[in-house]
Amino acid sequence: MEVTIPVELPTSRYSVVIQPQGLQHLGEKCRQLKLGEKIIVVSNPVIFEHYGTTVVESLDAAGFQVNTCILPAGEQYKNFDSLQKIYDAAIDQQLERSSTLLALGGGVIGDMTGFAASSWLRGINFIQVPTSLLAMVDASIGGKTGINHPRGKNLIGAFYQPRLVMIDPEVLQTLPEREFRAGMAEVIKYGIIWDAELLAMLEKTEQLDTLAALDLQLVSEILRRSAQAKVDVVSQDEKEAGLRAILNYGHTIGHAVESLTGYKVVNHGEAVAIGMVAAGKLAVAAQMWSQADTDRQDAVIQKTGLPTQLPIGMEIDQIVAALFLDKKVQAGRVRFVLPTKIGHAIVTDTIANTLVADILTGM
Amino acid sequence: MEVTIPVELPTSRYSVVIQPQGLQHLGEKCRQLKLGEKIIVVSNPVIFEHYGTTVVESLDAAGFQVNTCILPAGEQYKNFDSLQKIYDAAIDQQLERSSTLLALGGGVIGDMTGFAASSWLRGINFIQVPTSLLAMVDASIGGKTGINHPRGKNLIGAFYQPRLVMIDPEVLQTLPEREFRAGMAEVIKYGIIWDAELLAMLEKTEQLDTLAALDLQLVSEILRRSAQAKVDVVSQDEKEAGLRAILNYGHTIGHAVESLTGYKVVNHGEAVAIGMVAAGKLAVAAQMWSQADTDRQDAVIQKTGLPTQLPIGMEIDQIVAALFLDKKVQAGRVRFVLPTKIGHAIVTDTIANTLVADILTGM
Repeated sequence: MEVTIPVELPTSRYSVVIQPQGLQHLGEKCRQLKLGEKIIVVSNPVIFEHYGTTVVESLDAAGFQVNTCILPAGEQYKNFDSLQKIYDAAIDQQLERSSTLLALGGGVIGDMTGFAASSWLRGINFIQVPTSLLAMVDASIGGKTGINHPRGKNLIGAFYQPRLVMIDPEVLQTLPEREFRAGMAEVIKYGIIWDAELLAMLEKTEQLDTLAALDLQLVSEILRRSAQAKVDVVSQDEKEAGLRAILNYGHTIGHAVESLTGYKVVNHGEAVAIGMVAAGKLAVAAQMWSQADTDRQDAVIQKTGLPTQLPIGMEIDQIVAALFLDKKVQAGRVRFVLPTKIGHAIVTDTIANTLVADILTGM
Repeated sequence: MEVTIPVELPTSRYSVVIQPQGLQHLGEKCRQLKLGEKIIVVSNPVIFEHYGTTVVESLDAAGFQVNTCILPAGEQYKNFDSLQKIYDAAIDQQLERSSTLLALGGGVIGDMTGFAASSWLRGINFIQVPTSLLAMVDASIGGKTGINHPRGKNLIGAFYQPRLVMIDPEVLQTLPEREFRAGMAEVIKYGIIWDAELLAMLEKTEQLDTLAALDLQLVSEILRRSAQAKVDVVSQDEKEAGLRAILNYGHTIGHAVESLTGYKVVNHGEAVAIGMVAAGKLAVAAQMWSQADTDRQDAVIQKTGLPTQLPIGMEIDQIVAALFLDKKVQAGRVRFVLPTKIGHAIVTDTIANTLVADILTGM
């Protein structure tokens, strides 16, 4: 069954479509958008091996002139070199303003392809076909695109909306289990900051640490609720002037942990899980949240098989220092997203660094 | 006397201010915009030598924390390396989302700084302080930013609006005469495509090939009318979906001439002058424009000391081939902007390549 979530922003409208066998229907969906003839599919070798043929054949059959740009897999390649390779493909194929870059992959491919699409000829069409759970529920929706700077994650990028996000749940079958759990971290996040029913649904589910334990209907419902949460928030605040910042729940400390461990020890979702546990403790210490609710959160994180403690050997001082390099710093104060009840969170810059250090020391 | 031209776009509002001694008043103007504390002034060594101290002192006095990023001068440095230097300065100074990049320079500095501002943290504040006539009347207004790809000009960039454009006409005193004439090419363009009175004013002026021949009131009026023409067009069509394309009058063939001569033989304004002469001839051949009007145009171009013929030794076939690499190609057809009367132009893709070749052969 196909679910369509409309996204309505001041300057663009598009749909997030959740559709089993969506890859097979990609060509016709793209055709409906009246895109120009040329499409470059950007992917990595692993994903392209699994789904490249299906996607290219579907686009081909719909009459598009399809080329590909295959980039090495991994966060360490989310950099200028990869961006240049997309630009080179664009010039080789003489892309025009009506042409399209299509991202077939996880968040790394989606973010880079989106930034390339935003900046090539000052903006060409962009389609998201996320293949990881993380990208399906988070990265592919809302128009944040970008690459890493050698000295910090996602420092360079653009807000640039896709023309379509096509989510095919069947693609999750080939997702490594660790990446599935990483995506679940963002799902849990929506349960805490936006959709209390989603959290309750996760609490009721016996086993959450592997896709195999979930029936397809539950997976679809998780995808739908998560995508809807993201769309709700982004529609109210596309450029992160206010509300959208709550989506960074767990990300402030999470980013610091990721970056200080060289993006090698924990993945993004695991870092967010650790960040949510820390933020929960901060909220309780600041008397904004109840111990009972933070316990509920931590139990779901644990049931999903995600980490709830800092990686061994991390220096607390370094984490606190790294917080100041974050985009979320304003006027020299670190801004935290903290929950106030299940389904609701606020942004605050009143948390003292010493409290952060204390909480982290206890983890 | 200060002239303020308001720019009202769907997602942003700002002012183009034309103010003698505007550099001295920059700090207070910036203060009124409620920018964050940190500003990086991006410039080149030549411009900074002339005006750096004035700008930095003005910002300093208004309470900003000012740093500088000085890039090598010249179109050949409008590339990734320079962009990276701006990013490095941004990370060194730990710029925040409320921080500002201020471009003090011509179109190259403005375009690069604007693209850096659009993409650092997905968008920080951007101020334009154009120092060349070309940048004052064209490049600094309207939000086109970008860098060159080794294989094509302005292929990478963003539409990103500044928070303020501050034009100080007195700065033109130090502009080399050849660059003054280059800027006049864009002024003449507005006279042809938008503002017939502006063209009449230029026709009435005895000498146009040097700033020294013009009184300050005429210079201010030229700046005001040109900036207003650009603002009028951009306000109706920010992202170049339609009308804005007329601003490319003279630029289609102009870009090809610039790029094929390695950006070394003619500068941008000279290339546009050649492009306008060619476009005028095309329009006459296509029976869209009168010979009398194209003669009026060519006479003003000539009086300004701008070229009206192709650089010696250019291959016509190469120019025609280069047209197809232009951003303005759509569905494989080259789009030309052609005048229909003084003060009005249209976009057309009905001009045959053979006609283009014939016209160029006659130049």
